[in-house]
Amino acid sequence: MRIARAVSRLISSFEKLPGIGPKTAQRLTFYLLHNPQSELESFAQALARLKKDTQECSLCFNVSETDPCPICVDRAREQSQVCVVETPLDVLVIEKGGFYHGFYHVLGGAISPLNNLGPDELHLYDLLPRLKNGKIGEIILATNPSMEGEATAMFIAKLVKDKFKKINLTRLGRGLPIGADIEYADEQTLSRAFEGRREF
Amino acid sequence: MRIARAVSRLISSFEKLPGIGPKTAQRLTFYLLHNPQSELESFAQALARLKKDTQECSLCFNVSETDPCPICVDRAREQSQVCVVETPLDVLVIEKGGFYHGFYHVLGGAISPLNNLGPDELHLYDLLPRLKNGKIGEIILATNPSMEGEATAMFIAKLVKDKFKKINLTRLGRGLPIGADIEYADEQTLSRAFEGRREF
Repeated sequence: MRIARAVSRLISSFEKLPGIGPKTAQRLTFYLLHNPQSELESFAQALARLKKDTQECSLCFNVSETDPCPICVDRAREQSQVCVVETPLDVLVIEKGGFYHGFYHVLGGAISPLNNLGPDELHLYDLLPRLKNGKIGEIILATNPSMEGEATAMFIAKLVKDKFKKINLTRLGRGLPIGADIEYADEQTLSRAFEGRREF
Repeated sequence: MRIARAVSRLISSFEKLPGIGPKTAQRLTFYLLHNPQSELESFAQALARLKKDTQECSLCFNVSETDPCPICVDRAREQSQVCVVETPLDVLVIEKGGFYHGFYHVLGGAISPLNNLGPDELHLYDLLPRLKNGKIGEIILATNPSMEGEATAMFIAKLVKDKFKKINLTRLGRGLPIGADIEYADEQTLSRAFEGRREF
């Protein structure tokens, strides 16, 4: 059957997204066929404008409407802390929590030799000039608890310790996630939870 | 944190899609931030053109570039069979199989009083004029094996039997799906599989 080009084109676009297989792509496309044209136009415009209306903050490399971004120019934030994360999505998630009030530094990924991502492909060395004014007292290494994230945290820790001996380097706590079942926890997580146990 | 409007707008658009929650919407949006603008434009255009470049076939009510659709005007297809389905996606899936060569009739849903969907809201009565020329010998009722789908099939069966006594009405076979585990089959499916058992 010759499927209408407009339909197959949208199916292909959806299929390119991570985690969206052919079946889901079909389902989403046929769902949208029943949406008003105005909804489709608004979705289309959001896509077309996504990159045009945003830029990278030249200080923290987060996604923003302005450069520098609202967080970097916010004088009410804790001026002595920088939280180093892999992606802008990490910033969004931490900010939603509302418990952290310092600055951020977005690496744009983690060191991953298999994917040809070395320190030079990330905004890793861009962290150093931000430390020179001596205001930063703590760097929270909030890269992912994966092989790549750990390697990246270690790399930064070494880099910073060599040049800025006074800065305190911390890493996010490890252990059981809230709501988890010990029964289903993996060995590594469980071992970290034992190491990180506290007085009751 | 004031998240960039362009970002939150696309997140909301994704969130409106069925089966896409806030976390997935965020993930997809931030993934697209790393895509080239040309990809985004092409995705956007596919969305904006989806309905403009398609129409409903006035015979079978499938989605098509032309009216009547390529299937309805195809003289090589089996002229005596009509397969009644709920949605255009059902047509797509059956056509991909390549085992069916007759015509289709797309209802646009199933009778569902809870959702205010009665026979008049569907292309149900539109099936009758298609049967008048006497060429159709079999109607395959391929609505979903759900409450609504069964009710719709029964409704159509009654309607057709009253007016066109010679037409053969069939329903898709029931039983265990290929690759299924008897252990995990639900009672209803298993009971249908026993009813529909065949000589080995």
